Amino acid sequence: MTSLAQISMQPVGYVRTQAVGDEVKDRTRTSEIVVTPELSAALDGIADYSHLHVLFWMKEISREKRIMLKVHPRGRIDLPLMGAFAVRTNLRPNPIGLTVVELLKVEGNVLEVRGLDAFDGTPVLDIKPYDPWDVVKQVRVPAWWRKLEEEKKGN
Amino acid sequence: MTSLAQISMQPVGYVRTQAVGDEVKDRTRTSEIVVTPELSAALDGIADYSHLHVLFWMKEISREKRIMLKVHPRGRIDLPLMGAFAVRTNLRPNPIGLTVVELLKVEGNVLEVRGLDAFDGTPVLDIKPYDPWDVVKQVRVPAWWRKLEEEKKGN
Repeated sequence: MTSLAQISMQPVGYVRTQAVGDEVKDRTRTSEIVVTPELSAALDGIADYSHLHVLFWMKEISREKRIMLKVHPRGRIDLPLMGAFAVRTNLRPNPIGLTVVELLKVEGNVLEVRGLDAFDGTPVLDIKPYDPWDVVKQVRVPAWWRKLEEEKKGN
Repeated sequence: MTSLAQISMQPVGYVRTQAVGDEVKDRTRTSEIVVTPELSAALDGIADYSHLHVLFWMKEISREKRIMLKVHPRGRIDLPLMGAFAVRTNLRPNPIGLTVVELLKVEGNVLEVRGLDAFDGTPVLDIKPYDPWDVVKQVRVPAWWRKLEEEKKGN
């Protein structure tokens, strides 16, 4: 039996950041995750981890952009169109963001993190600890991916 | 402005597996992700990656279990209660599963993967490539986490 019925969820909190525009892509910046106060107990013990996965809902992505299905990697029109599931673009059918962040501080229902590339006010769907099972020793990625990283280093 | 309004999404496919009960936890098993045929184009280029993140909706988790907020890690009552966001339990406010899988084969709209701990018929919310940015070199985890892993190795 397939299960393709619509799924509804309530955010567990939201992102608070001073970063605007492209500043959110700067992975050295810090921002905050403000967890819904009624869910504060769900944070107990989280400070023992160095890193977290943050799942968030990129509400800025319009319905038209969600059904494009193919995009140029990182908006580079010199690179071939790729399927949305083959890139980390925000232009995807369900614009869920997934970012590994460094956990800097926990204060009540607020987490201070480094590296969260989400805009101010972004709804957070889930927070999960990052553990050694999430580390892949041998990762294979496309040639265009490696090329773009090399270019970044060259800049 | 906070954004805690309800969020709705449509699954992009579902899991197909022979595994039942605890068999789904066996990370050596293979299973399939059947992507909605209309979204097939979004898979273009995905075969160039060795690993993927799969985000899925654990629909088997009842509303009562979602609001527990604190759980014993891996159901071990000899370990202290931890916040749901501090463990990878499925008993969480939004029961989104996140698993790194090995991509074995792509055939049309079907992905064959290894290590997906999801039941047959589970709705899939998103599929994202795993890339070197997802690898954390130095991961800190709680003492109880390391203890449980040591016990597993000892068995």
